[in-house]
Formats: sequence, structure tokens, C-alpha cells
Amino acid sequence: MFKGGYTGKILRVDLSSLSAKEEKLPDALVKNYLGGAGFAIKYLYDELKPRTPALDKNNKLIFAVGPLTATGAPCASRMAVVAKSPLTGAVGMALSGGQFPSEMKMAGYDIIIIEGRAEKPIYIAIKDGKVQFRSAAKIAGMMTTDTQLFIKEELRDQNYRIACIGPAGERRVLMACIVNERRAAGRKGLGAVMGSKNLKAIAIRGTKRPAIADAKAFKKARAAMLKNMKDSPVLYPQFSKAGTPMVVDPMTEMGIFSTKNWSATGQISMIKGLGRETQDTMIINRNPCNDCPVGCSQVKMVKNGPYAGYLSEGPEFETTYSLGSTVGVDYLPAVIAADRLCDEYGIDTISAGVSIGWAMELYEKGILTKKDTGGLDLKFGNHAAVIEMLRKITYQEGLGALLGQGTKKAAAKIGKGTSDYAMQIKGLEMPAYDIRGAKAHGLNYATSYTGADHNRGYAFQEIFDIPIPEKVDRNAIKGKGRLTKWNQDTRAVTCDCATMCAFLLDMAVPAVACQNTADLINAAAGTDFTSAEIEKIGERLNNTARLFNIAEGFTRKDDTFPKRILTESIKAGASKGQLISQKDLDEMLDEYYMERGWDKNGKPTPAKLKELGIKTR
Amino acid sequence: MFKGGYTGKILRVDLSSLSAKEEKLPDALVKNYLGGAGFAIKYLYDELKPRTPALDKNNKLIFAVGPLTATGAPCASRMAVVAKSPLTGAVGMALSGGQFPSEMKMAGYDIIIIEGRAEKPIYIAIKDGKVQFRSAAKIAGMMTTDTQLFIKEELRDQNYRIACIGPAGERRVLMACIVNERRAAGRKGLGAVMGSKNLKAIAIRGTKRPAIADAKAFKKARAAMLKNMKDSPVLYPQFSKAGTPMVVDPMTEMGIFSTKNWSATGQISMIKGLGRETQDTMIINRNPCNDCPVGCSQVKMVKNGPYAGYLSEGPEFETTYSLGSTVGVDYLPAVIAADRLCDEYGIDTISAGVSIGWAMELYEKGILTKKDTGGLDLKFGNHAAVIEMLRKITYQEGLGALLGQGTKKAAAKIGKGTSDYAMQIKGLEMPAYDIRGAKAHGLNYATSYTGADHNRGYAFQEIFDIPIPEKVDRNAIKGKGRLTKWNQDTRAVTCDCATMCAFLLDMAVPAVACQNTADLINAAAGTDFTSAEIEKIGERLNNTARLFNIAEGFTRKDDTFPKRILTESIKAGASKGQLISQKDLDEMLDEYYMERGWDKNGKPTPAKLKELGIKTR
Repeated sequence: MFKGGYTGKILRVDLSSLSAKEEKLPDALVKNYLGGAGFAIKYLYDELKPRTPALDKNNKLIFAVGPLTATGAPCASRMAVVAKSPLTGAVGMALSGGQFPSEMKMAGYDIIIIEGRAEKPIYIAIKDGKVQFRSAAKIAGMMTTDTQLFIKEELRDQNYRIACIGPAGERRVLMACIVNERRAAGRKGLGAVMGSKNLKAIAIRGTKRPAIADAKAFKKARAAMLKNMKDSPVLYPQFSKAGTPMVVDPMTEMGIFSTKNWSATGQISMIKGLGRETQDTMIINRNPCNDCPVGCSQVKMVKNGPYAGYLSEGPEFETTYSLGSTVGVDYLPAVIAADRLCDEYGIDTISAGVSIGWAMELYEKGILTKKDTGGLDLKFGNHAAVIEMLRKITYQEGLGALLGQGTKKAAAKIGKGTSDYAMQIKGLEMPAYDIRGAKAHGLNYATSYTGADHNRGYAFQEIFDIPIPEKVDRNAIKGKGRLTKWNQDTRAVTCDCATMCAFLLDMAVPAVACQNTADLINAAAGTDFTSAEIEKIGERLNNTARLFNIAEGFTRKDDTFPKRILTESIKAGASKGQLISQKDLDEMLDEYYMERGWDKNGKPTPAKLKELGIKTR
Repeated sequence: MFKGGYTGKILRVDLSSLSAKEEKLPDALVKNYLGGAGFAIKYLYDELKPRTPALDKNNKLIFAVGPLTATGAPCASRMAVVAKSPLTGAVGMALSGGQFPSEMKMAGYDIIIIEGRAEKPIYIAIKDGKVQFRSAAKIAGMMTTDTQLFIKEELRDQNYRIACIGPAGERRVLMACIVNERRAAGRKGLGAVMGSKNLKAIAIRGTKRPAIADAKAFKKARAAMLKNMKDSPVLYPQFSKAGTPMVVDPMTEMGIFSTKNWSATGQISMIKGLGRETQDTMIINRNPCNDCPVGCSQVKMVKNGPYAGYLSEGPEFETTYSLGSTVGVDYLPAVIAADRLCDEYGIDTISAGVSIGWAMELYEKGILTKKDTGGLDLKFGNHAAVIEMLRKITYQEGLGALLGQGTKKAAAKIGKGTSDYAMQIKGLEMPAYDIRGAKAHGLNYATSYTGADHNRGYAFQEIFDIPIPEKVDRNAIKGKGRLTKWNQDTRAVTCDCATMCAFLLDMAVPAVACQNTADLINAAAGTDFTSAEIEKIGERLNNTARLFNIAEGFTRKDDTFPKRILTESIKAGASKGQLISQKDLDEMLDEYYMERGWDKNGKPTPAKLKELGIKTR
């Protein structure tokens, strides 16, 4: 029998009336959606009227931490941020880590639901359950680091942790992100939603660690988890030292590190400038999330040359691609500078870089000219132009105003076949893995409820050659439907609902992720989840999100790829000749839908919904 | 009879052995030197062997707060930072405000004396009397804001206040400053001294407000002070709203806002771009020092255009000159950006801007060419070139390596008569007031123990037309000796020793500054200073500093002006035709020395030293 022992509450904030009230966390919600993204997406599905424009005041912006956040469980100081995405029109969900999530939990909240729109820019200050609405007039337009410094001074308490938007979010740039400390809920334009609500920041301070239901069991589960982590051949020996850029070299060797807007993957090696050897020389520190013994986040700093003094918590692997290889830049100091500027402006590094890379290809093809770029010589490799274009995106100047809407909308406006080169799915720009040489990655990009998103069902099997749940050939088509479902469901529940770090799951506990999650949560919260129930929650979440998207008009035809993927093979390197034809895609989709219990159009069947206990709206 | 009731102690830190010990504050020190700069310069004079090179490990870097810091007295959260200056070779003394000084006092210290040199870069963390030495390996090269953020995270306590150097100080750039929060002990290269000691930062946290000896008397003295402030026609109505840039317009109207390296003062009006009307539009907030009800510090931010997002706590009036008018830039957003970058790099805005302005004049005269500038088109008004040159100064690249040594040393290296245009005295670059039209300012620049320094004896009488101690004609020569002595002595004790804010004294209590200071300190510390004794302390300090400089080789010939001041009159505007001839200077110096009881060479007579109770070394 289910016992729900969560200690947190829901804070529902109405910005239109500047009021807030607390709600109890329903047991059924805990049982069926576990936490984090599960909670947030369930609320979004239940409460947001279909076809509400994403920047309408009726959109909801929901922050939700996990049941293990701030409990002392390793690597769970993370939160999901959810709204309807203005970039994709689908579910917008992004995770962030750092300190804010723990602070939110210690302030007493599992979920904060932001509704309505403030009349003037404001920020919210929350301290142990006390909510204040404060004018953001003074901080309008402010960069994210300065914003955080400012609010700490204004509140005369340096201990607040702050999630905020930069100038991009305030201007509702569709690829704006939400930044806390130097982390970001980066993708899908959630910063624009926050901006549309006239909400500059949430400052939060909590002093109470959540109670642990069964301290002895928790200690045991935690020790088991830590042992798994210690036993991992990758986690501490590699990942803790190099962070995500540890895969730049192997991905390049595998020929799937996308380059120059995916036109030159495998052809040129940017390994010298962007690879691990160079990255490692610029690391100055690790900056772990709260309660994380791994500390993958590598702080890097440029010590000399034109970008001297720039520091970023990164670049991560993905940013090494988006502000590096895909814009043809292999000068890491420029990537670090661009990364920092994205964080300060509050824009998603992936969408920004990929959009600029796309514009570079158009410029090199002559479709865009200097007249369009405002005189910028927008050819691949011009890092000064990349940096200037980030500013133009943020301040919506010239071509930047167009690129800030993402490649899908920009291509629709430019026309001239430019959408063929727009590396996006459902409007979300594609991450680094060239899916032509990693088919499960491809199917995941195509079917993720958020668009081209590597995090919603990351096929680690293709990357690390780990035979869990089974051995995988990265270029095979068959079997990818089943694999993708498994990846998506386990990741949805462990990473997105339980808000355990994705890397931990890939590298330390892939085989026992759900059991491990169940053990920790049961001990912490006094619940009695089984491993099977945990996995089911992941499936339930993916179906719920799918229903949301269907109601927004998404169909099978949106589970697809840009033309380049379908028709143009990788030209060089270890994945030379690979593509995913329409036939391959159809075959993968058919298998995937079948595995999911969805019909041929990708719609969950009544039987599946019944099995999962999902009531449609 | 003197009763010394100070509650603080001295912390003496030896970086060579990474050890620290506490010393009691000697009563005689309190009685004769009061606090702040008095304490620090007395220690420097007593303990530093003459002719010690400023970047030698035996130089001492001394931080000293005032007797009123953190007591709740208005506008006293300030500190003096003192060392032998590597820029001038004279006493280097600069003040900073903000939060750090109060934190230092609350941690239990009136003085921190830093000696020796750490073997590797370190920082010092001090919490309520507990001292830790920590490696600064990770933060080597880091900008000042990031440094402060980093240290708070590393110490796991967001409440530390931090004084640090940026990359410029680490590289011992001779115009490097020390930054706490966004304030700076800006001038005379004290950041280079800190860098030479391998000391990246001092983080300090104190939780104990100092005890007040006589709470009732203190309340009364404080109320009297606050009333004086309230009665000022300028302090709240103007200064609190606009800060120091309130004088850009009147100084321009008086024809003494120095422009284009002093070659075009009065000729062109940069008022539209740099004046108050423009400045006011960019203010987003005030950021007062601790316990300050005025809050002159105006935080400004650029909201759009090429410098969008740049925020600085400033630019102050002086920076409006140094990174604005004297480099021919009247685009305030560029000044704000340059100001912020100086703070991040940790370089003095005045010396940096004036040095660049000098190089611009040489470039326009053809003495420097693009070959020298590394291709930069270094003409007046090119703000992008100013910003790039700040980077070159910091990282000692090309011409920047030369300019970073200040105009005196740079001119000596370039030769070709370039020293004629080097706007410096004793190696310190000149502040904004074109002294040709403000003679007491001139005499003060010439005789200040720190070099061309407006703050050591600011002639507010010439600027604000306040007849205290008497009515003054700004272009008269006669009487400026006596006036300058009075200005220097009252300011030395009230601002530099008591660390009361200079602006307060100019605008609120010029006639009663010493009495006011005595009343507050006597109440706070249980001392029994009279107003006359207070003024005497100022004189004692100026004589002590003079003795220090004489031992370093300074003589009457160093109390002089650049050739331009002596031979070239202001060409236009309300001060057209003005200069200070050698004869004028000699006349002023003779009067000044006589008023001071110094001989014709500017050396204190034995009688004067006896009167002041100063023992020479």
C-alpha cells in the first residue's frame, strides 16, 4: 500500500494579483508522478488550456524539485522547470542543478507554480515559506550575474539563491533561458515565458533540511548508491575530472561530432582546439551541485589572449559543439567567452549556437549576405562574429531578431529552402550528436516530447558501448524503438522526476537505476515504490507529455528530421556514408509506437492510457 | 587627559611564513594618529626601510579602518590602504568604502599589516579573529567579481566581504588597484603591491559591532551630524541623487573639465554626452556604503546598443573624465563599459584613462604610429580602442605594457619630448580638474604626498564657492599656500584618519568638520580629543608622510607640474588664458612651505617636528 511521506508543499503564485498560497501535495500525484518533471508536467497537462499561446499570461511556469533534493542523497540537487515552450509549442521542460533546487526544498517547497502576469517587472523573494513580491524596476535589463549580486544586496541577505532571466528573457527572445548561479534551465525558451510574466527572478532561502522517514534505510541506500558510483570505471576516473567534454574526442573519433551546421561532420577534426587535452588545460575548478561528490561541472577560464579573463562554468560538451564545432570555431577561449555571454544574456547555448551555425551556412551559400548580417562577415570560424551575433540575438537587432526565434521560425520567414538546413526538430535546435551515425539518438530526438533533446532518452549504449539493457549497434535500425522507449522511460523517472543527475545514471547505475531510485525515495519519504512502479512512472510521464503535445496539434509527421538527415550522408570519418532515410525513420517509428502501445499516428491507445491510469482532459 | 578606548586590534600577517599575530593598538598611536591613514602611514614610516623597492617583499601593505567604522556613525565605512607606491615611489595611500571596512572592524581589527611574500598565490580568510591562509591557485588570473563569487562559494559562507586584485594586480601592473565589492582602493598601484606579495584576496567576516563608550553622547553627536547633513543645500537634494557626476556640468561651465589629455579643455563641450542629464538617464540604483544615509554611489547600466548589459558602480566624475573627456569619448555607454572593465581587471580608472589619453595625443601628433599601437587607430574618441587598450594594459601586451607603468615611466622610455604631455605629478596621473583654472587644486596636486591627488586636500572653495575658511578667487595665486595647508590638514584627519566620507565634509560640515569628528570619536571611543587636537593630527600626518617621501629622495623640484600646465594656457571657455607659470608655482610653494613650517626645500623644520612630536627615523 502506498504511503506518501513527502514533506514539501506546493506554492501557487498568481502574479496578476501578486498573491501566493500554499497547497498540500496530493498523494495521488506522488504515487503516479514521483516528483520533478512528473509533478510539473502533470500540472501543466491538467491546468493549461490547449492552444494557449506560450507567451500568454495563462501559460504556467512550474518549478519542481525531486523527492531526494536536499536530503543528502547524492546528485539530486536538481529541479525541473516546465511551461508550454514558446520555441516549440510543445511541452517545455528543462532541468537545472546547482544550489537553488536545494534551497527551494529547504524553504519548504516541492513545487512552485507561477501563474498570471505581473503588471510591472517584479521578483519574488521567498524565505522559509514567507513570500514577498518586489519591484524589479531597478534590475530590468540586467545581466544574470549582476542580477544575482544585486538581489542579495537588496534583500540584505547574501544567502539567497536566485533563479533569474537576463535581458534576453525580458525581451522574450524565444531561446531565452533561466539562470541560477551559473547553471541554467537552458532550453525551450523557458526564460521567455518567465519574461512574459514580468518575472525577473525568484530569490529563495531555506534553512530546513527535509526530514528523512527512515534514517537507517536511507543511509544504507545512499551507501549502496555511493558504492555503485565508486565502482564505475568512468565516473570518478574520467567524468569527475573532465566533465562532459570528455566525450568530445570519442565522438569525433566515432565521426558523430556535428560540425559546421552538420555539413562537415567527420570531415574536419576540430579535436586539437576543442578536445579534451585543450579543455583540461583551462580548467580551474570544479563546482559541484549541492550534495554531489562528483562535481562534473568544470569551471574554465581564459588566462591570456583576446578573451583573457572570461570564465564560464563550462563549456559543456554540448556548448563545445554549439558555440564551437557547429559554428566552425575551434578556438576554445572564444567558446568560453561565448558561453559566459550566453549565461549573462540568458540564452540557450545550443539553440543560439546552432542558429548562428545555420546562418553561417546560409551566408557561405550566398543566401544571406552582408546586407542581412549588418556587415558581419558571418563565415564559419569567425568567433568575433559569433559573439557579436549573440548580442544581436539578445537585443533583437537585425538578423539577431530573426535568429532569436530559432531556426524553424527563421527559416519559415526567410524561405528559399533554408529550412532544409535548419537543424531542428519540432522547433528545438539539435544537440551535438550527429544522429546519422547514432540511430537511437536519432529516434530519441525525433520522439522526445520536447523536440530534439538529447536528455530525454539519451542512448548511452551507442556512446559508451554499455550492453544495458542489451548490446546495441549504433547504426542498426531494428531494435531502436524498444531501446528508445526504455531509455526514455527510465530517464524520465530517474532523472526528470526523481531529479537524480543523468550522468550518474549513465555511468554508475544504468542497470539498477529504477531500483536504486526506489530504495532511496522509500527510505527518505516513507513510500513503498517498487522498481517496476518506478519505471512505470517514467512511461506515464512520457504518455502524459505526448497527450499534451497531441492536443497542441503535434502528430507523427512532427516526429521527423530535417531534410539533411534524411537525404545527405555524413561525408567523412568513421561514420561516413551514414544517414537515416525516410524508410529507416518510418521503420523506427513503427517499432517505437508499437512498443509504446501507441497507434500508427503516434497516439496513445485507450488501452495504454487505462493501463497507466491516465485520464485525458 | 587622553583616554584611548578603541576596541580593535592590529593583525600582523607575515606571508613569508604564513603566520599571523595580534597586537594591541598603542595608546600613543591613537592619540597622535587617530586611525585609518594616520595609523597606516605611521606604521609605514616607522617600519619600512627607506629606498625599499615598492614591489620588494619587504614593502608593507596596510589596511586601516577608522575609529567610527561600523559604529553606526554616518558615512564612515571606509578604510585606508597604504604601501610605498610602485607608481610614484612615494607614500601610496588610497581609500575605499562599501562593506569590507565595516566587516573588518566587526571582525575585530583596526589595522591589518601585510608583510613578506607568499611563496605561491594565496588568499587570507579571516572570520572574527580566526585567520586562514588558503591557496589562490584556482583563482589566479580571475576577474574581481568572479573572484569574490568564487571565494564565497569556496568558504561556503556567502557573508564574507572580499578585497581582491584582478589580473592586473597579479601581473604587477603599476596602476593596479584593490577592489572590494565594486569599490576600489584605486590609485597609486596598491594592487601591484598586493600582487607582488602573491596575495590575491582578503576575505573577511565579522559579527561584532564595536562597543560604544558613551551611547548617549554618541547618539547626540550622531544626531548633530545628521542634522548638518540634512541642512546641506547640496548633499541630499543633489549629491544623493546624482553622485559625483553632478559636477561634470559646472566644471565644464567653469572651463576646467580637462579634455583630450588637457589639450582641449574648454574648447569642446562634451556636456551633452557626459553631463548630468545623460548620466541621470542611466542610473538604476544607489548602492550606499554601510551605515551611509546618502548613497552617492550611482549604479548605472547600459540598456541597449553595442555596450548593452554593461553595469558599473559609476562612472564617478573622475572616471567620466579619465575614460571619457580626456580620451575624447563622449559616449557614456562606452565609459560605463570601460569603467566596469577597469574594475574587473583591477586597474585604476584615472591612471589608465589618462595614460591612454596621453598615448592618443602622441598618436595624433604622429609620435606613436599604428606600428606602436598594434594596429589600433588610437585617435581621440575611439572608444573601442580605449577598451582594447585597457585589456592590453592589463595583460601587458605591446603598448599596453608601457602604458601600464604610467605616463612618467612610459615617457622616460619613449623619450622624444613626450614627457611634456604626460599629465602626471610624481608619477601619478592627474585628476579631472584642470588646475590652470583652479590654483589651489594645482598647489594641492603639486604638494600632496601621494602625487597628483585631488583627494588629499580638495579645494572645495574653488568649486562650490563656499567661503570657508574664507572667500577664495580660484585664479588668485596669493593665499593658496595657507588654504592648501588648511584643506590638506582638515581633510587628512577627518577623511583619511577618521575615514569619514570626503563628500560629507565638503558639503555638510566644512566649518565644523574637526569638532564634529572629535565629538563622534570621543563618544564612540571614550577619548577626549579637542577640535584643535584633531586638526593637529591632520598636520602631523602630512608631515610624517612628507618625511617618508624626503627619505625616498623627493624634494621641492618634485612639487611641480607637467610642462603643459606651466607654459600652455587653456585655449577656450570660461578659464581661457589661464595657466600656472613657474613664477606662480614658486610663489605658491614659498607661501605653502612657510605656512607649513617647512624650509625653502620643502623640508619640515626641527621646530615644526618638535611641535608635532614627530621623531624622525
